[in-house]
Amino acid sequence: MSQLQLPTVLTMGEPSGIGGDITLKAWLSSHATLSPFFVVDSPERLKKLAETLALSINIAEISEPAEAVTIFEKALPVYPLALPEQSIPGELNSMNGSAVISSIEQAVGFVKNDRAGAIVTNPIHKEALYQCGFAHPGHTEYLAALAGIETEPVMMLASDRLRVVPVTRHVGVQEALNLLTPDLIVETGVIAEKALREEFGIEVPRIAMSALNPHAGEGGAMGDEETTLIEPAIQALRDLGLSITGPHPPDTLFHEEARKNYDVVLCMYHDQALIPIKTLDFDTAVNVTLGLPFVRTSPDHGTALNIAGTGSANEQSLISALKLAGEMTARRRS
Amino acid sequence: MSQLQLPTVLTMGEPSGIGGDITLKAWLSSHATLSPFFVVDSPERLKKLAETLALSINIAEISEPAEAVTIFEKALPVYPLALPEQSIPGELNSMNGSAVISSIEQAVGFVKNDRAGAIVTNPIHKEALYQCGFAHPGHTEYLAALAGIETEPVMMLASDRLRVVPVTRHVGVQEALNLLTPDLIVETGVIAEKALREEFGIEVPRIAMSALNPHAGEGGAMGDEETTLIEPAIQALRDLGLSITGPHPPDTLFHEEARKNYDVVLCMYHDQALIPIKTLDFDTAVNVTLGLPFVRTSPDHGTALNIAGTGSANEQSLISALKLAGEMTARRRS
Repeated sequence: MSQLQLPTVLTMGEPSGIGGDITLKAWLSSHATLSPFFVVDSPERLKKLAETLALSINIAEISEPAEAVTIFEKALPVYPLALPEQSIPGELNSMNGSAVISSIEQAVGFVKNDRAGAIVTNPIHKEALYQCGFAHPGHTEYLAALAGIETEPVMMLASDRLRVVPVTRHVGVQEALNLLTPDLIVETGVIAEKALREEFGIEVPRIAMSALNPHAGEGGAMGDEETTLIEPAIQALRDLGLSITGPHPPDTLFHEEARKNYDVVLCMYHDQALIPIKTLDFDTAVNVTLGLPFVRTSPDHGTALNIAGTGSANEQSLISALKLAGEMTARRRS
Repeated sequence: MSQLQLPTVLTMGEPSGIGGDITLKAWLSSHATLSPFFVVDSPERLKKLAETLALSINIAEISEPAEAVTIFEKALPVYPLALPEQSIPGELNSMNGSAVISSIEQAVGFVKNDRAGAIVTNPIHKEALYQCGFAHPGHTEYLAALAGIETEPVMMLASDRLRVVPVTRHVGVQEALNLLTPDLIVETGVIAEKALREEFGIEVPRIAMSALNPHAGEGGAMGDEETTLIEPAIQALRDLGLSITGPHPPDTLFHEEARKNYDVVLCMYHDQALIPIKTLDFDTAVNVTLGLPFVRTSPDHGTALNIAGTGSANEQSLISALKLAGEMTARRRS
């Protein structure tokens, strides 16, 4: 089997959330066009869920990831995982937390020893995991720990129309201001630029740096972080040879004309990045983790417990995540 | 003449900016559909500019606003204003600052004594005005002072798809966090709700309150302003009888499905409001000042000195501002 044929591994995610719903729907609607993937999940619960949703789908238990490639066009390949208790859509059960974690650990194991090409993760419910001893601030940090890397990974949100990278992430706005430093901006920029070259196939990535403040601070009248933090970071990145413009006023950076001028925007805080991409591409934006030793993407939404098991969950973001993971893996290996 | 026929008065704005370009283009493209307006400007400079831009347009000097209504369909009505020095596109000249201010003062005079129905302002260049003694933080604050009101006016950005009101405005992000109080949120909400009823014709305006922090603070894990500031403000607004939801996670509030659930979003800071509306409707978003004793709108862009006099300035936002001003005035008076 050539390296390019390595399947993507999809984690189960929170079993009482919409992960199962969108996994079944994604395979059904898109198996003819997606690169092969398999899910580490309970075959029994997926079969039961398919029945509930009245989906006609073949579910094939596999004992080795490679099998996924050959059977993918006829069935959803499932690498079996035992659930301590039966999962009920919409009802969190911390007894199943160990299986959520196990699914992630097995996925990392498969990419580490080259039995899978990339990881796509279904959404987890952190609070449920905290109850069974999970001690990481989030999914991404856990993957970094499993991968054994020291530096913090970088989050990119990507759709067909826009790519954004928030320099600070899951913290309040005040904390984001406290955390922002030229070093953090530079480190994030370096990782983003490398990923765009190696995994997105962009020879000279054009980076647009957003300002922090309205009107880019308007010469200091509305904040000075542009001159004290962001401009020094831009200079440092230019000294490293990166193609970079800014700091740009944040509100005029995301409309159609503006988007022609860059390949990615480096944003200073979570919502500066996520507001524009979710306003434009709510259903198809993909979360990409950069700076890990393997490709990892995920749908850009949560567990949506309230609609789990109803069939109304939208599988588009998962499909986009699976598609992008396949493309990134092919580029990384070529 | 009936009250509904009062013309809208348009100010000159910075004469070396694109104000003249877009005024000429707006009348040319839209005089058949817009309610009558006139501009307080120098007829000579507009004629010269029309020549430069090779625009075939009739410019009619008027000596009383009412004349604008009768001649509007055949000519752009201009209430004459003398410029101390000839203005050159792209070249700021502080000698003309007094005329910029005079145009605004005359416009306010016309609406105050019922000779005009609404004010639309062309963009000004604050730095140029500061050099000739202008002592107000901005256009809106100057209009409030001329109107003699004590409370601070409220800024709304409006397009066909979205209306947003930032609770804090032209300050840096850190300063916005310092300024945010329940009282400020409540005052802003009250003014916005009243305007939506009286000037936008919405019987029971549905207000969506944005959170400040990512994921609406996620139960305190990413900031506590939701519980300490925003929820008390929501409760106070509900006690006043307003229809209000939130605090909503800011990044999932502006996509197409979400926009069906409200008439306006109250945002905590400038870019939280301006990023989504400018991402969606960069060319057509209008700036509306609420809480003044008269209707005032303006195009949502600056003086764009670099393209003044070239003909490439986009007049769509000015047209939208003129259209909305006419509609708001009609509703206010009905």
